[in-house]
Amino acid sequence: MNNLNNDRINVALGDRSYTIRIAESFEPLAELDGSGRKALLVSDSNVAPLYGGACADVLQKAGFIVTSVTVKAGENSKTLREAECLYTAAAAAGLDRSSFIIALGGGMIGDLAGFVAATYLRGLSLIQVPASLLAMVDSSVGGKTAVNLDAGKNLVGCFHQPVSVAINLDVLHTLPEREYRSGLAEIVKYGLICDASLYQRLSKATALLLNRDPPFLARTIARCCQLKSEIVALDERESGPRALLNFGHTFGHAIEAWSGYGKLFHGEAVAIGMVFAAYLSQRRGGLAAADVTALENTLGKLGLPVRLPAKTSDWRDIHLRMLKDKKTVDDRLQFVLLKSAGCAEAKCSVSEKDIKEVWNVIRH
Amino acid sequence: MNNLNNDRINVALGDRSYTIRIAESFEPLAELDGSGRKALLVSDSNVAPLYGGACADVLQKAGFIVTSVTVKAGENSKTLREAECLYTAAAAAGLDRSSFIIALGGGMIGDLAGFVAATYLRGLSLIQVPASLLAMVDSSVGGKTAVNLDAGKNLVGCFHQPVSVAINLDVLHTLPEREYRSGLAEIVKYGLICDASLYQRLSKATALLLNRDPPFLARTIARCCQLKSEIVALDERESGPRALLNFGHTFGHAIEAWSGYGKLFHGEAVAIGMVFAAYLSQRRGGLAAADVTALENTLGKLGLPVRLPAKTSDWRDIHLRMLKDKKTVDDRLQFVLLKSAGCAEAKCSVSEKDIKEVWNVIRH
Repeated sequence: MNNLNNDRINVALGDRSYTIRIAESFEPLAELDGSGRKALLVSDSNVAPLYGGACADVLQKAGFIVTSVTVKAGENSKTLREAECLYTAAAAAGLDRSSFIIALGGGMIGDLAGFVAATYLRGLSLIQVPASLLAMVDSSVGGKTAVNLDAGKNLVGCFHQPVSVAINLDVLHTLPEREYRSGLAEIVKYGLICDASLYQRLSKATALLLNRDPPFLARTIARCCQLKSEIVALDERESGPRALLNFGHTFGHAIEAWSGYGKLFHGEAVAIGMVFAAYLSQRRGGLAAADVTALENTLGKLGLPVRLPAKTSDWRDIHLRMLKDKKTVDDRLQFVLLKSAGCAEAKCSVSEKDIKEVWNVIRH
Repeated sequence: MNNLNNDRINVALGDRSYTIRIAESFEPLAELDGSGRKALLVSDSNVAPLYGGACADVLQKAGFIVTSVTVKAGENSKTLREAECLYTAAAAAGLDRSSFIIALGGGMIGDLAGFVAATYLRGLSLIQVPASLLAMVDSSVGGKTAVNLDAGKNLVGCFHQPVSVAINLDVLHTLPEREYRSGLAEIVKYGLICDASLYQRLSKATALLLNRDPPFLARTIARCCQLKSEIVALDERESGPRALLNFGHTFGHAIEAWSGYGKLFHGEAVAIGMVFAAYLSQRRGGLAAADVTALENTLGKLGLPVRLPAKTSDWRDIHLRMLKDKKTVDDRLQFVLLKSAGCAEAKCSVSEKDIKEVWNVIRH
């Protein structure tokens, strides 16, 4: 863990560099220079009642003039229509080019409010205040913003780096169990794609993870943020190594959309997608069968699914959805696959036969 | 006119640099490397019947697999709703990250299709093929993309540079007279803000301009593109000199929105806005009264309005709209004003009294 100071992680992106702060409160936000600027605090109907007031208080302490707006919780709110409501709220609050958007919530709020920050007045300063485990380790860092279309997840968006990420670990205590476990899937992903020793630690410490052990969580979240910031610094716009972060996501996104957004949680879909990709990796000769089994065991212990929730024959539908994935080029599916547990490879082509056979394992 | 090769102008923006090609056909598009890539050709209901086929043919010659989509002509189509239709068309056409969006049309199409290119799959390659005089000299160059909200014009958008701009002068022959004249306003603007000798030439050559004299137009358009590319290269994101290009636009945007988009053409609103700004410049002691009169004469000879079309007392409404302008900071209006004809200054504050008095001159 070189260069890692546990409570401050730098994302090195030249003049778009920023710091991820990890604390047990919203206090790091008080260090910002608000000095009379307007801030639109965007949260959802789950998070706002719990933390909206405390977050707004700290922002006011920093000098911001805060307007709060609450979006209905759930992936179904990640739409252009909802973005339009936020633009209207921004206009009504009189936001100008010196104003800030604060995204207080999980991945949905980070993506949606991030997209609004990227596009309102051609770009406002954005602060990510992730309120789910998944958002802390993944979506709040790296500048991806998005809304969904009927045609697919995250099809519309921008790269727009935040000016700061403020992680308040305390909010994890109130995170619903299923949502918390969903976030664990992305943590396992970091181990699998690029940090074998993290993966080993996680496999052994499933009880600590499930108990939300504060010191273990703090270290683990910091490590994931560090890995993500290194990958993003290497490849901001996903032309190279950043694609590794999509491990499990080609199949995952497809089944998440197929199930109806929100029915299968993102992390649950990614867990199944990682198992799908692990079996594909095994067929290509990269991964040992024992490693696939071990992955299924670890995910199972963490309460994550490793098969589709109900037997289905909707292969055509899911296959079509995979083809609409942003990573697809010239109508050919590409996967991130594992060479070993801790080392992944992007842009792998796989035969139709292998995909179909793995599908028959995963479908229930 | 240093560094100006009349048919190729470079916009120097590092790894986002591109070339503006000026020709009397769409042929420069044939030099692109389409090689099996998909292209979504976006045009409007005025331009598509005239030039959609010819443009698609040349793109196909370059190797693109072209899908054409037509948007209803007029500023009322520059909405998020219309953008959503284009995203859906892009998904149906199977566009991937290697695909192109081609914007064939005036400023509305360039802004709308440009916004779609900036945001679909987090950014696709964009080619601007401007089909109006205004788009040729202004909106197709520089990477501004936008849609309108009910709350104001261009409030949502991105900076997204095209990979190429292909100007086909031939399309000007079929441009409706009122739209053509509207474009002349932006040409006069370039002279006023930064090129006194261009301004003098235009003032003397109003007949050549009105007759759409091909050699004079070719030289003038090239000069405007050169000026714009120099300004954009200095200040891509409008933190400095690029703001000069907004001369006449604070009042112009407000009355364009107030009149109902499309009723007053953009260039007509800018013409009135330039006169408004000229009077303000005179009050601040920068501009001679004779220069204001000369500007009104030139615009008048070009068939452009210099007063609001009908007497109105809607000052409050127009003033509120000005305050919503993207250039407003901390609720204080800022104007681009003239020091002389050919030299402008940005971020000028003006007293309420002066604004109100000039309003009384301009309102009819």
